[in-house]
Amino acid sequence: MKKIPVGVLGATGMVGQRFLSLLIDHPYFEVTVVAASERSAGKTLAEAGRWMIGGEMPSQFAKMTVQPVDQVGDVGLVFSALPSDAAGPTEIAWAKAGALVFSNAGAHRRDPLVPLLVPEVNPDHVNLLELQRQHYGWSGGILTNPNCTTTHAVLPMRALHDAFGLTKVLLVSMQAISGAGYPGVPSLDIIDNVVPLIKGEEEKVEWEPRKLLGTLGAQGIEEAQITISAHCNRVAVIDGHTECLSLAFERPPADEAELIAALREFKAEPQTLNLPSAPTHPILVTELADGPQPRRDRDAERGMATTVGRVRRCPILDYKLVLLGHNTLRGAAGGSLLNAELMVAKGLIKA
Amino acid sequence: MKKIPVGVLGATGMVGQRFLSLLIDHPYFEVTVVAASERSAGKTLAEAGRWMIGGEMPSQFAKMTVQPVDQVGDVGLVFSALPSDAAGPTEIAWAKAGALVFSNAGAHRRDPLVPLLVPEVNPDHVNLLELQRQHYGWSGGILTNPNCTTTHAVLPMRALHDAFGLTKVLLVSMQAISGAGYPGVPSLDIIDNVVPLIKGEEEKVEWEPRKLLGTLGAQGIEEAQITISAHCNRVAVIDGHTECLSLAFERPPADEAELIAALREFKAEPQTLNLPSAPTHPILVTELADGPQPRRDRDAERGMATTVGRVRRCPILDYKLVLLGHNTLRGAAGGSLLNAELMVAKGLIKA
Amino acid sequence: MKKIPVGVLGATGMVGQRFLSLLIDHPYFEVTVVAASERSAGKTLAEAGRWMIGGEMPSQFAKMTVQPVDQVGDVGLVFSALPSDAAGPTEIAWAKAGALVFSNAGAHRRDPLVPLLVPEVNPDHVNLLELQRQHYGWSGGILTNPNCTTTHAVLPMRALHDAFGLTKVLLVSMQAISGAGYPGVPSLDIIDNVVPLIKGEEEKVEWEPRKLLGTLGAQGIEEAQITISAHCNRVAVIDGHTECLSLAFERPPADEAELIAALREFKAEPQTLNLPSAPTHPILVTELADGPQPRRDRDAERGMATTVGRVRRCPILDYKLVLLGHNTLRGAAGGSLLNAELMVAKGLIKA
Amino acid sequence: MKKIPVGVLGATGMVGQRFLSLLIDHPYFEVTVVAASERSAGKTLAEAGRWMIGGEMPSQFAKMTVQPVDQVGDVGLVFSALPSDAAGPTEIAWAKAGALVFSNAGAHRRDPLVPLLVPEVNPDHVNLLELQRQHYGWSGGILTNPNCTTTHAVLPMRALHDAFGLTKVLLVSMQAISGAGYPGVPSLDIIDNVVPLIKGEEEKVEWEPRKLLGTLGAQGIEEAQITISAHCNRVAVIDGHTECLSLAFERPPADEAELIAALREFKAEPQTLNLPSAPTHPILVTELADGPQPRRDRDAERGMATTVGRVRRCPILDYKLVLLGHNTLRGAAGGSLLNAELMVAKGLIKA
Repeated sequence: MKKIPVGVLGATGMVGQRFLSLLIDHPYFEVTVVAASERSAGKTLAEAGRWMIGGEMPSQFAKMTVQPVDQVGDVGLVFSALPSDAAGPTEIAWAKAGALVFSNAGAHRRDPLVPLLVPEVNPDHVNLLELQRQHYGWSGGILTNPNCTTTHAVLPMRALHDAFGLTKVLLVSMQAISGAGYPGVPSLDIIDNVVPLIKGEEEKVEWEPRKLLGTLGAQGIEEAQITISAHCNRVAVIDGHTECLSLAFERPPADEAELIAALREFKAEPQTLNLPSAPTHPILVTELADGPQPRRDRDAERGMATTVGRVRRCPILDYKLVLLGHNTLRGAAGGSLLNAELMVAKGLIKA
Repeated sequence: MKKIPVGVLGATGMVGQRFLSLLIDHPYFEVTVVAASERSAGKTLAEAGRWMIGGEMPSQFAKMTVQPVDQVGDVGLVFSALPSDAAGPTEIAWAKAGALVFSNAGAHRRDPLVPLLVPEVNPDHVNLLELQRQHYGWSGGILTNPNCTTTHAVLPMRALHDAFGLTKVLLVSMQAISGAGYPGVPSLDIIDNVVPLIKGEEEKVEWEPRKLLGTLGAQGIEEAQITISAHCNRVAVIDGHTECLSLAFERPPADEAELIAALREFKAEPQTLNLPSAPTHPILVTELADGPQPRRDRDAERGMATTVGRVRRCPILDYKLVLLGHNTLRGAAGGSLLNAELMVAKGLIKA
Repeated sequence: MKKIPVGVLGATGMVGQRFLSLLIDHPYFEVTVVAASERSAGKTLAEAGRWMIGGEMPSQFAKMTVQPVDQVGDVGLVFSALPSDAAGPTEIAWAKAGALVFSNAGAHRRDPLVPLLVPEVNPDHVNLLELQRQHYGWSGGILTNPNCTTTHAVLPMRALHDAFGLTKVLLVSMQAISGAGYPGVPSLDIIDNVVPLIKGEEEKVEWEPRKLLGTLGAQGIEEAQITISAHCNRVAVIDGHTECLSLAFERPPADEAELIAALREFKAEPQTLNLPSAPTHPILVTELADGPQPRRDRDAERGMATTVGRVRRCPILDYKLVLLGHNTLRGAAGGSLLNAELMVAKGLIKA
Repeated sequence: MKKIPVGVLGATGMVGQRFLSLLIDHPYFEVTVVAASERSAGKTLAEAGRWMIGGEMPSQFAKMTVQPVDQVGDVGLVFSALPSDAAGPTEIAWAKAGALVFSNAGAHRRDPLVPLLVPEVNPDHVNLLELQRQHYGWSGGILTNPNCTTTHAVLPMRALHDAFGLTKVLLVSMQAISGAGYPGVPSLDIIDNVVPLIKGEEEKVEWEPRKLLGTLGAQGIEEAQITISAHCNRVAVIDGHTECLSLAFERPPADEAELIAALREFKAEPQTLNLPSAPTHPILVTELADGPQPRRDRDAERGMATTVGRVRRCPILDYKLVLLGHNTLRGAAGGSLLNAELMVAKGLIKA
């Protein structure tokens, strides 16, 4: 198969570099364009900043020249790791010019015509692109993946909603510092400390799952009627968000075993289509009494799975559990990449 | 005033040393006995282990000889920092022999005849001692303070229960490593990690506030009818437990301001009696959007206050907030010491 | 005694706030001016940034209005916590206008007419101010304290140089993140990591002790002939620099005991003059086999002492040891304050 | 090629599990025996303890039954990850019974008849086994790899000794917590802290390179005449030891470039023989001004290389540099495995 040339917008940041690392020897895609802000434009990627992922920057990227991101390039598919404020107008410019933009930014998630997509959760929402193109008159388009905290929560939420009818979710997160990018969180704020606020995060987590679990009709997406209450904290962890959930259901499972079975048996299109980045098991359930833990479980299924543990009764809602996922892999670049793979596998993108 | 001679049981551990440090130049008490397990007995305190609090061990303690804790000593008041398994029979032996035991251990908290005491919350529960003595025939007695996580939660719970009638509390904690003592949590378990389980902790947090907020009648304590759901996590923080709470009320406050006012205005007997270790304000409310934080707020009011922040609506229960307190000061040794000060100030203990 | 009004330049930063906290209820000084960059000027201190030291900003400072630092204020003594680039011209402007500037910045340390002062080490160097005023025609003047890493090394160096004639020092530091200010070191750079470079630091550490231990003559300071080799690292510690030293002497001590005695017996003018911020023992020697340690020893003598441990033979030079000191107290604001106290006590500054 | 059955002694510990993980699908070896202390014997590996490396224990090991380590098993080659005290007699028992023991323990390193081996450094020392067998009358034998800190230092020391004649090395280490095993370092000792002592470590580091760089003659090994001074510290890093070295030479290189060239060009038998675990480049030299760093460079060459950076003049000795290596891979299990691969490739072990 001839590879599809792709670009990475915001290629010098933390998530941009994650996109690059995931695109090394990718079976569908080949990076031909790297773009970033004016500050980096004209430099090589190696000159523009260190390889945050560890070790030396892979040689195939080190010598690529960074293009200015506001100058639309000659490539039909781009991954966007832009900061949200820059992402708004820039992604539209690329979409207008014919590119399909797979965005990790928050700028367009609330647009009712932009799919907020997790392939295991709402693969049919890609069809919203039709409405988007009609309405905006773009030859390209924009697809987003949700916030990292939402992404890992919505996988088990999908499985449990299907099985038992989810009605309420109370979620408290303990989020990794990599979620704030680089330089991001000052060390004086987080060593021997917890920061019980991540600006704008709770609003995203309380709303995004409603769109993700919503129903696509002729008029667009009808939100799922699930009430979510979120409290988001930053902790001294490099990668991996831990989330404590209490859940209420329309038809609660009879016991923990029934709930766990619904999680373990959950499979979806990415697994059926055997997408290159898809985890074999999108939801893992750990047997360990004190699991999951970020350092020990974040790399499960190459960082593309959500690991669940500590399923037990909740005295207030129905059940409690803990979940854990890699925030810059499945929670960011990996999630966006999986979205693009889904569209290729469905024949919606061609080389 | 002539000082009351006191002993510290478990004087070589983390909490034992906190007792010692708080008893330096104490206006009511003077340490005359230090006791610990067989392993340390006969050594001086300096030989028995390093001063965990920092710097050199204060000279007045360094040369004291450790007595075996299972051999009842000649002192009428002891503070117990024993591990729970040792605390059970040992504290009873001291109580039988006439000592008033102020225990930080969990062993007797569930005994319906043992007061579980926080002076701002249920000072009248000291009267349970009468029933205890009658029933067990002890000339001394046992009083306990709650688990560190409960202690800091129950202060605002008291204020809010009085004002609005508390019905439900969903609590997620991020607890400091000092809560597990020394050596305690292995560094390989907690650096770049979160451990989403603290054995036995959730059971304590879900039950202790019911006893603390209960009513003492002729038959003993009638538990408060509050439903609590807890999820307890360990994080890489030295001192200071952070707790995210969602709360439901019988008569919810009209807005955040009303809830905050109830917290700010809360005062109780320790403040009226001007107890030496009492905080001027047992509950502080921070104005900072990203507060409270353990490293920045744990030492407020010499570690004896609970700091509350981020009061806001909860889409599922009524309100959400974050609270923070020092787990080895107010949450352990300081809490127990305040209990003893309360009894002295009330004339129930004499020099 | 009537208090001397003082200003703090760079009052909104980490070191500036340390100056403020040390000046609360100071017996000699009273803060009447707080100045900072344009960005903060006109705001109150509380508006200009959070109180990094912990808890709430003391009320006496919270409402003070920040003055622009480049506009010379009406005060005869200022402490400067400015960043080095801004410090250069700004401190000169204040000195010209008649203020005595006690600077923690690096800008003027290399000026042969500016004293680099540690009161226990070279108190006579204050006399260099005469030459400085003559030469530059300033009515005020500039005095600096050394870099934090130098400060803690030079205290034992002075004691050992006096006793045994120091010739070589090989020094490897493990420095706290607070040394880089706020926001300073990104958490992604330091959690689960070591950064083996602190820009410009090694040059300072290899040179400053030569000036500090030098001899003031009619022509200025003649540097001490000591060869220093430094390697400076950043580690995940909040406060407290740890330094491993190997030392060579003209007349090596016969054994460890002789070296330790020279450290323990060291006293100097700040102790004789009983300066308010002076430690009783400027050099402490710990008995603990695994000491000193930053979290456990940094607060010794209110952060104003250097703690030494692990004195032993070096197979290459003569002896090895470890030392530890608080980098933002004695190593920065506290050191500068002690310099000012020295001049007051010597009658060189009057109210 | 038929695989050689091997055993792992101390299979339940940190280093034991690293051996197991490196032996998954190994081209030469197949694990048929796992042994540990009485406490674990009879259990399955999964029952005996959690998989410290992360995620779930590989299924091929989970169900293996742990044998008691003091009962010699039916296998001709074992890797020993035993604690040093247990390793002494136990490894001798296995050697007597005919097994070739590749030991990571310190017990026999000082035995003049036991090779202390790093394949790039002293591959000819395997021949010492002949003398060992003759003298002790064992049908098997014992080979050791050095301490983790020595291992990473001795690779560049070999290259530089060959090129310039090394005479003195002053080494200060900042070592990872995984080096102390599990539970190992208490978190209260290392978060926001440095511990400037690792018991016994400095003695090892000052002596082992002399044996490693020594010459094997008819009478055994003549130590290299290099004087080493070590200071070893523990820091809050999970994996990866950082070491600051100052070096003196008989024939110092003319400049940094000449020294770097000697490191870059260094190759040895493992590379020539293309051993399965051998790094392509045993010594990497980073271009980054602030490298190497443990979290960013420890995994270079699958954790089997030493990365060097910051090469510069030393004012006291000749040159300074920083080096970094993975302490539980090349520094422990990986180093021992490479020793065994060397002997297979040389035809000294047969299936």
